[in-house]
Amino acid sequence: MRIIHSEDHRLHFPQAELSGGQFVTPFERPSRVEYVLNRLKERGLTDIVAPQAVDMTPVQALLDLGYLEFLETAWAAWKAEGMAGEIIAANVPARGMHMDRIPNNIDGKVGYYCHASETAITQGTWRAALSSVACAQSAQRLVAGGADHAFALCRPPGHHATADQYGGYCFINNAAVVAQMFTDAGAGRVAVLDIDFHHGNGTQSLFYDRSDVMFASLHGAPQDAYPYYLGYGDEKGAGAGEGLNLNYPMPPGTDYATWGAALDDAIAKITDWGAEALVLSLGVDAYKEDPISFFRLESNDFTDAGRRIGGMKLPTVVCMEGGYAIEAVGINTVNVLEGLQDA
Amino acid sequence: MRIIHSEDHRLHFPQAELSGGQFVTPFERPSRVEYVLNRLKERGLTDIVAPQAVDMTPVQALLDLGYLEFLETAWAAWKAEGMAGEIIAANVPARGMHMDRIPNNIDGKVGYYCHASETAITQGTWRAALSSVACAQSAQRLVAGGADHAFALCRPPGHHATADQYGGYCFINNAAVVAQMFTDAGAGRVAVLDIDFHHGNGTQSLFYDRSDVMFASLHGAPQDAYPYYLGYGDEKGAGAGEGLNLNYPMPPGTDYATWGAALDDAIAKITDWGAEALVLSLGVDAYKEDPISFFRLESNDFTDAGRRIGGMKLPTVVCMEGGYAIEAVGINTVNVLEGLQDA
Ligand SMILES: [Zn+2]
Ligand SMILES: [Zn+2]
Repeated sequence: MRIIHSEDHRLHFPQAELSGGQFVTPFERPSRVEYVLNRLKERGLTDIVAPQAVDMTPVQALLDLGYLEFLETAWAAWKAEGMAGEIIAANVPARGMHMDRIPNNIDGKVGYYCHASETAITQGTWRAALSSVACAQSAQRLVAGGADHAFALCRPPGHHATADQYGGYCFINNAAVVAQMFTDAGAGRVAVLDIDFHHGNGTQSLFYDRSDVMFASLHGAPQDAYPYYLGYGDEKGAGAGEGLNLNYPMPPGTDYATWGAALDDAIAKITDWGAEALVLSLGVDAYKEDPISFFRLESNDFTDAGRRIGGMKLPTVVCMEGGYAIEAVGINTVNVLEGLQDA
Repeated sequence: MRIIHSEDHRLHFPQAELSGGQFVTPFERPSRVEYVLNRLKERGLTDIVAPQAVDMTPVQALLDLGYLEFLETAWAAWKAEGMAGEIIAANVPARGMHMDRIPNNIDGKVGYYCHASETAITQGTWRAALSSVACAQSAQRLVAGGADHAFALCRPPGHHATADQYGGYCFINNAAVVAQMFTDAGAGRVAVLDIDFHHGNGTQSLFYDRSDVMFASLHGAPQDAYPYYLGYGDEKGAGAGEGLNLNYPMPPGTDYATWGAALDDAIAKITDWGAEALVLSLGVDAYKEDPISFFRLESNDFTDAGRRIGGMKLPTVVCMEGGYAIEAVGINTVNVLEGLQDA
């Protein structure tokens, strides 16, 4: 399996994440990638290449152009306004406020384009986000060109980013861009399977009313887990996408027996639907020791999950999402990849 | 003029405010009250008394009961969850998410009941908020009992707080509770005039569809000023309240000539409507040297504004709101009160 990786992910490393009323070193940090790279090499997965240049066409087709311009220019505008720190949203359009009016003021604009304040934008964030989506795009081209699988070692992750909002450590939704590239190339049915512990609210929102992309997400129940306000089981898609959004919210303490049953159900539905290609949003924060999650998967469970997913025998682009039990991130991520290959 | 003041405001003093991507000492701090008290005494306004006990009946009638329970219990729940810092919202239900589902998780619940992350909840916040509304209520009783004016030296302020959201340094909307008490006592037409630099989004939202309370707010245009996503001129009220919400958004650099003309217009509309009582949301952050605002009022302008408002000859409860140019807060606040008395 070819792996796509860029060191430009390091351009995004905020000093602080708002957590528990304090600033902490971000859980989503560059060393996550180092652990994955080390483990890949340990396991002989050494076909690691740099991405081709980013292609903005599918990104612009899928996302809001004002949002992309904001991401590109926010840092300069923030600093021009004399702000001392990194960009952290202190407000967002909340219940009862206008959802469709964009302030001129950069502080207000940050809030408009953000859905969670734990995520900071830094000087290098835009370039890092572009390098992340470039990895995903290169992986898509390999699979579209005939490879069974390819792994985009994306960082920053993408699945929480919507058409016009960042948050949850995500800026550009890499997995969604890959799905868009498959449909642009003529695929009529593309599935995005999201096994990150957190609900892939961004991906859901991008395809919620589309008939050509099915989205399935296994995640911590929103009553108890970020993103809190989306990811319920009754969100089933709308319009032409009715029935094509599958949420599997699960409670604290969920183990692999329960999680695996949800995975099997999602796999069956993707298969029955007749998906032609698969995008796997691969977070490994369902791991029992993840510091910000509450499932109980063991490392071996990730191998088994990879095998079950690989059993679909679909052309598969894997995009890295979350996972914060730093040392185990490498093991668990590579376990999924090895399971996929072995299937 | 009798002044109502409680030292319990000191129970609310967060260590940090999220501002410009950093934690800073909150602009809304206890010393604001000290400067007002000192200036009152300097000017011979020494009829300063403690509030009567808070009456929760009108508070519960006006606000969401789940929200009040949240404010009362949030600190214990936050600490029980092992959170290290004060309560700061890291998420709120944002565009595209459910606005009507309340998480169980305290972190998610905080976001549900919050509309801006600059505002922290501390161990003493609930008691301070109750003491603030108690001041407002005692002032209302004096005016309902025949006094021309009374000044509630409220802290924390209230005008940004909605029926079920805190933010903008506000937790319980003191001015709105006063208006509710007037209508509960039989007043058919009560006006709330908000001259704080920031739009009184909370007060607006509480009376937006009511025919018995008119709301008029002079403030920095939302395109450029917090709360950013409400306070536009085309928000005129709805249903039975159609036409009774008057917003006067004004651009950076607005001076007293422009601001005073807006005040005159608001006064004329309140008078024409036939208001029987007035609640003045008195922020003095329209002052030229306010650190987080952008109007250009001089200290003498506040005296003149007080005189113009006093010219309405309405029974008037004054509730303290914002104002952050610490030393000038006392002068400007007392200038308004003296203008009121002199009218
Ligand atoms: Zn995650
Ligand atoms: Zn203010």
